[in-house]
Amino acid sequence: MTAAPTAAVHCTRDTPVDQEHSLPNSTVMPPKLAVSAAPFTVNQSRLRALLDGHDVPMRDRMYRLFETRAELFAPRYGLTVPEERELVMARWAVVREERLLEGTLTAYSPASRGRYDAVMESCGYVDHSFEVKMGVHYGLFGSSVALLGSEEQRRRWLPDIETARMLGCFALTELGHGSNVRGIETMATYDPHTRHFTLHTPTETAQKYWIGGAAQSARWAVVFAKLTTPDGVRRGIHPFVVRLREDDGRVCPNITLADVGVKQGLNGVDNGRIWFDHVRVPLSQMLSGFSQVLPDGTYRSAYKTGDEQFAAQLAALTGGRVSISVGAVNRMKTGLSIAIRYALSRRAFAPSGDADGGDDDDDEANGEEVSASPRQEMLLMDFQSHQVRLLPRLASTYVFALAANRLKQRWHHRTTDPNVKEIHLWSSGLKAVTTWMMSETLQECRESCGGMGYLAENRIGVLKSDFDVYLTYEGTNIVLVQQVARALLNAYVRGQYPEPPPEPPSEMQQVREAAFAQHALERLEHALVRELARQMAPAKAMSAADAFYWWNGACLDTAVDVGRVSAYLLAYRVASEGIARERDPDVRRPLELCRALYGLYVLDVHGSLCTRMGVWRDPATVLQRVHQQMIALCREMRPHAQALVDSFAIPRMLLAPIAFDWVSRNARENIGAVAARERVAFRDAPSANGTGMPCSRM
Amino acid sequence: MTAAPTAAVHCTRDTPVDQEHSLPNSTVMPPKLAVSAAPFTVNQSRLRALLDGHDVPMRDRMYRLFETRAELFAPRYGLTVPEERELVMARWAVVREERLLEGTLTAYSPASRGRYDAVMESCGYVDHSFEVKMGVHYGLFGSSVALLGSEEQRRRWLPDIETARMLGCFALTELGHGSNVRGIETMATYDPHTRHFTLHTPTETAQKYWIGGAAQSARWAVVFAKLTTPDGVRRGIHPFVVRLREDDGRVCPNITLADVGVKQGLNGVDNGRIWFDHVRVPLSQMLSGFSQVLPDGTYRSAYKTGDEQFAAQLAALTGGRVSISVGAVNRMKTGLSIAIRYALSRRAFAPSGDADGGDDDDDEANGEEVSASPRQEMLLMDFQSHQVRLLPRLASTYVFALAANRLKQRWHHRTTDPNVKEIHLWSSGLKAVTTWMMSETLQECRESCGGMGYLAENRIGVLKSDFDVYLTYEGTNIVLVQQVARALLNAYVRGQYPEPPPEPPSEMQQVREAAFAQHALERLEHALVRELARQMAPAKAMSAADAFYWWNGACLDTAVDVGRVSAYLLAYRVASEGIARERDPDVRRPLELCRALYGLYVLDVHGSLCTRMGVWRDPATVLQRVHQQMIALCREMRPHAQALVDSFAIPRMLLAPIAFDWVSRNARENIGAVAARERVAFRDAPSANGTGMPCSRM
Repeated sequence: MTAAPTAAVHCTRDTPVDQEHSLPNSTVMPPKLAVSAAPFTVNQSRLRALLDGHDVPMRDRMYRLFETRAELFAPRYGLTVPEERELVMARWAVVREERLLEGTLTAYSPASRGRYDAVMESCGYVDHSFEVKMGVHYGLFGSSVALLGSEEQRRRWLPDIETARMLGCFALTELGHGSNVRGIETMATYDPHTRHFTLHTPTETAQKYWIGGAAQSARWAVVFAKLTTPDGVRRGIHPFVVRLREDDGRVCPNITLADVGVKQGLNGVDNGRIWFDHVRVPLSQMLSGFSQVLPDGTYRSAYKTGDEQFAAQLAALTGGRVSISVGAVNRMKTGLSIAIRYALSRRAFAPSGDADGGDDDDDEANGEEVSASPRQEMLLMDFQSHQVRLLPRLASTYVFALAANRLKQRWHHRTTDPNVKEIHLWSSGLKAVTTWMMSETLQECRESCGGMGYLAENRIGVLKSDFDVYLTYEGTNIVLVQQVARALLNAYVRGQYPEPPPEPPSEMQQVREAAFAQHALERLEHALVRELARQMAPAKAMSAADAFYWWNGACLDTAVDVGRVSAYLLAYRVASEGIARERDPDVRRPLELCRALYGLYVLDVHGSLCTRMGVWRDPATVLQRVHQQMIALCREMRPHAQALVDSFAIPRMLLAPIAFDWVSRNARENIGAVAARERVAFRDAPSANGTGMPCSRM
Repeated sequence: MTAAPTAAVHCTRDTPVDQEHSLPNSTVMPPKLAVSAAPFTVNQSRLRALLDGHDVPMRDRMYRLFETRAELFAPRYGLTVPEERELVMARWAVVREERLLEGTLTAYSPASRGRYDAVMESCGYVDHSFEVKMGVHYGLFGSSVALLGSEEQRRRWLPDIETARMLGCFALTELGHGSNVRGIETMATYDPHTRHFTLHTPTETAQKYWIGGAAQSARWAVVFAKLTTPDGVRRGIHPFVVRLREDDGRVCPNITLADVGVKQGLNGVDNGRIWFDHVRVPLSQMLSGFSQVLPDGTYRSAYKTGDEQFAAQLAALTGGRVSISVGAVNRMKTGLSIAIRYALSRRAFAPSGDADGGDDDDDEANGEEVSASPRQEMLLMDFQSHQVRLLPRLASTYVFALAANRLKQRWHHRTTDPNVKEIHLWSSGLKAVTTWMMSETLQECRESCGGMGYLAENRIGVLKSDFDVYLTYEGTNIVLVQQVARALLNAYVRGQYPEPPPEPPSEMQQVREAAFAQHALERLEHALVRELARQMAPAKAMSAADAFYWWNGACLDTAVDVGRVSAYLLAYRVASEGIARERDPDVRRPLELCRALYGLYVLDVHGSLCTRMGVWRDPATVLQRVHQQMIALCREMRPHAQALVDSFAIPRMLLAPIAFDWVSRNARENIGAVAARERVAFRDAPSANGTGMPCSRM
C-alpha cells in the first residue's frame, strides 16, 4: 500500500490553491498521498498517548490480538442475526481465554477499571455488539453485584461473573418505562414464612424490555422491582438476583423470555423481554448493600425513601454514560480517519480545456459540472466544501477526546472526588453532545465519501447504524441535557451562578484567541439560564403538578439549549486545561488549532441562538468574522489532516479499504478475495449451549 | 386496534398544557389516542389527493395489491443479501404479471409516465430496493433506449424491455469517475471492416462500478464509452447496447462481472462491476438517436462536440432526480407518520407527589428526571421539545410535497415546456434539499421514538439506511447545489437577476405573514449571490484552469449556501402558488400553517447565515420573534398532528407497530407471531435463472 499512515500530506498552506494540480497524480494509476513538508510537525505518538489517555500498552496488546486472530476479529458484513450473535460470543470467548479482565470486578481499583475500559474500548473499535455484549455482563450485571450487593454477595457471585461462568443481564427498563425508569411496575413482595420474595409482572407494559442477553445467552439477571414489605409499605425499587435459565439453557419455571427482534444495528446483542409469573426468589438474593430485609420482614435502609435509594443505586451505575462519551469520540475518530484518508487519495474534476480534445466543457449550456481531463483532477480534500464538512468535526473530535478522558479520569477516582454530583452532570451533558456530534459526523463522513461511503466494507454507514443507539440509551439525550439545565437553573436561583465576563469592545475581539469563544459561550450559557429562569418564573405560583407541566410544555426548548451549550462550554474549558499543561509545541499547537476551530464552529452553528440571546452587540459583524476565520482555520488544518487522523493510531484492519489503496483493492485479480470475504457467512463460531463458550458451571 | 387513522386528536390549543393530564389514560391498558374537537378540521381526502398529485386510483390499486399479497409485500427484516435479492425479484414478478407498466415505455406520454411514477412510488413505500431494481431496468436502461435510440432501435428492443423479458442495466459510472462522469475512460473504437465497435476497459479505475443489476440479474447493459472513429478523432461519450450474459445467465466472452459487495442498505439491488476486454459490439448497437456512425466509419451528429451531445443525453435522463425528490418526501411522510402517531400514544413522566407514596421525587438530590406515578404521564407529543423536533419537519414535508409534485408535472410535460433548463435546475436544487431534509427528519423521528425507533420492525432506522444513498447518487448533493449557484451567478453577472424587495420597517414585519419569510429568503439569496460574485471577481483575470481552482478552493462554501437557500426559496414559492389555488378552507388553512412554519423554521436554522449576510437591520429582535413564533406555530399544529400525518394515507401495513397499538402487539400471547415473522428467513422466492422470473426469451 502506498499510503503509509505516517506520511505527511501535501501542504496547500502558503501555496495558492490554483497550484494544487502540480501534485503528482494520474487517475489511471493507484492513487498516492502526495508528500511535502508541513509548516509545523505533529507529534503523533504523543498525541496518540494523550487521546487514548491511559493503558496504551494494553490497547496495543488488544490490537495485536485482533491482528493475529484476524479471521475472528476483522469486521464482517452481511451476516445473519444468528451469525452475528455467534460471532460476538466467539470473540468474547477469546477475551475470556486471554484473561484480559481478570481482577477488574473482584479487585476493583482505578487501575483495574482503567484496564477494563482499555479492553472494552479496543473491542468497540471492532464491533459495537462485541463491546455491549460484554459491557452488559461485566459493566451492568457484574457492577450491580459489586456496587449494590453485600460483602457476602460479592464474595458469592463476583468470581464466577468475572470469569463469565455465570452469565448475566440487567433487567431494569420495561415496555412502558424507558427514559422514566422510576415508573416501572414489576412487583416484589416478601413472605416471612417462606423467606422468599415473589417477583411478578402485573401488566403488559411491565414486561422487561431491551434486556441485553435475555433473549439467548443470559442465565441470570439483576431484576429491578418495586418492593412491598409484609407491613404493606411500598419501599420503592430494589435489585434482585434472579435465575432465568438453567445451565443447559432451559428457561426456569414461571419465567417467559422473548426476543425484541431485529434492530437497525447492534444485532450481535440478543436484546430480550422478560415476564415474571409469581417467581419465587430467596431472601439472600435481594442485593442488600444499600438496604436489607430481615428474615421476619423488617426493613432497613440507609435512605429516607426507596426513591432516594434508587437514585443512589443508579448513580453508582452511571459509568455507562462515561463509556458512551468515550465511545462516541472513538467512532468520530474511525469515521474521520476513513473519510479524510480517502479525501487525500480520491480526485474528482479538473479544469476544462486542457487535454482530451473531444471533451471541451460546455458547462453553461447544460448546467453540469465542468468537464474533466483524465489528468489534473483535484483531491477531494482541496475542495473548500469538503474541508468545511470534515475539518471542524476533526477539531471537535480532539476537544471532545480531552473532555471525555478527563470525565473518565474523574469517574475512575470518584470515590475520592469532592463533587460526585458534578461528575454525574458532566457525564449527562458530555454523553449528549458527543453522541449527537458523532451522529452528525458519521453522516458527513458517509456523504463526503460518495458512494464508497455507502459500501459496508467501508464501515461508516454500518457504524452509523450500530452506534445510533447511543443517542437514546443510558438516558435519551433530550432528558440528559435537561438535567444539566435544571442544575444550572437551581444554581442561578440560589445565586450560585457567576456572571460571565462582559463583551469586550469589538476592536478588542480577536476571534482566534481562546478567550473569545470561551467568553462568548459563557455569555450564551448565562443568557440562556436567565431566559429559562424568566420562563419558569410563573411556575413559582403553581402547584408541583402544574409547574411540572409548565416546564415540559413551555420551557423545554430553552432548557435543551441550556444543557447543550453548557456541555459545549464544558468541553472547551476542560480541553483548555489539558492544553495548558502541554509543553511540547508539536502537541500544543495542533491542539490549540483544534480548540480554536471547534470554538468557532460551535459559535457558527449556534449563531442564530447567540444572536437572539444578545451575546454580541453587533452579531452581523462578529458572525461574519467567526465564519471567515473558521474557513481560514480549515485551510490551516488541511496540511495536517492526515497527521491528525493518523494520530488516532487506529489499526489498518479496523479502518476501511478506501482509507488505503482502494484502486488495487478493487483490481480485477482481487475479485475472488473480496467475494470470499463477504459472500461466505461466518462459520466457525462454537455454539455449545448457545453461548459460544464452554460454561462448565452452567 | 384502537387508533383509527382517521380519529381526530386531542386538542391542546386553548387548553393550558397543565390540563393535559385530564386525558383518559392508563399506562396499564393499551394506549388510545384521545379524541376531541380541533379548532378547524382538516380535509384529509382532499389533502391526500393533493399530496399524491396524480393517479390516486392507481396508487390505491397498488396498496390493495400489497395487502392481498401481504406475505410477499409486507416489509421484511433480518434477511440475508441473497434473500433480499430474491424477494425483490419475486415482487417485481408480480408487477410484471399484473402488467402494471404496460405501455409506459412503448407508448410514452405524460399520462403513461404518470402511471409509471404512481406504480414506482407505491413500490418505494414497500422497499427501496424493489423500486430501484425496477427503476434501473425501466427508467435507466429502458429510457436510454427510448430516448437515445433510433426509431428502429426502439421498435427492436422496447417491447421486450417493457415486459422485462430483456433485463438490462445502465453502465455509466466507473470506479474512478462517479460525480464527474465525463472523466470515464471506457473506450469504444469502430472498425469499418468488421462493422463492429470494440469496447475496452483500459485501466482499473475504468471498471464500471455501482451498476445496479450487473452483479446478478442483468442480461444487457447500456454502456457509455468514449468513441474514437476510424479517422482517429475522439468523439466523446456515446451509448452502446451490450450483451452481458446469455439467457441462462452465463457471462458473455471477454466480459468480467463482479459484485460491489454488501452495502449499508439497498441490498436487494445487485450493484455490480464490469470489465470489457476488447468486446466486439455490432454497429447496430450504438444508440443512434443523437448521432450515427455509418458503416464506412463516417460520423454524424446533431451536436458540435461529443461533450455537448453527452450533456444533452444526460439531460434526457435526469428524471431520476425528479423521482428522488418525490421519494424523499414520501420517506418523510413515512417516518413522521410513525413517529407522530407513536408520540400520540406513548407517555412518559408525570408530576411528582401524586399517588404511589413510595415514589416521592428526589430530583435535586440526584439530578435524575422527576419521578412518575403510573397515572397521568404526559403524551410525548405534548413535550415542547418533541413538538419542536417533529412539527417543523411535518410542515416542511407538505411544502416539499407541493414543490416536488410541481417539478414532476413539469417533467412529465417537458417536451412542451418553454424552459427545460429551468426544470433541470429545479430538479438539482430540490433533489438536494429534499434528500438532506429527509435524512435529518428520519434521524429526528428515530430519536424521538427512543429505543422503539431502533427496532427494525418500526422501519425508521431501516429506511434511513436504505435511502441514505439518495444523498449521493444521481449527482451528489454538493455538486447539484453548485449547478444552481452557478446558474444564479451567471444570471447576476448578465444583469438578469432582479433585486429583492428591501426590508420593511421592523414595525411592519409580521413574521407570520407569507410575505415575511419569502422576502427574507429572497434577500438572503440575493446577498449570497452578490457575495459569490464578489468572491469570484478575481477569477476574471485568471486562466480557465486557475479560475476553476479558485471556484473550488475558495468559493464553494458560499456557492453551496446559494444553491441550498435558492432551493428552499423555490419550494416556498411553488408551494405558495399551489396554496393560492386552493378554495377549500380545510385544505388551504392547514397548508398555510405548514408554509408559515416551514418558512420560520428555515430562517431559524439559517439565522446565523441571515445575520452575517445582513438580511435584517436588527437580527437579534427578528430572530427572537422568528423563533418564538415558530414555537407558537408548533403548538397550533399540535392538535392537527395526527390529521396531517393521516392525510398521507399510507396503508397500515407500510407503517409500523408503534404507529398503532404497540402494547397489544407486544403482549405475551403474540410472541410466537412476532418471532415467526422475523426469525424465518424469506422462503418462496422463485429463483429460475437467478432472476426470480421465467424469462422465455433469455
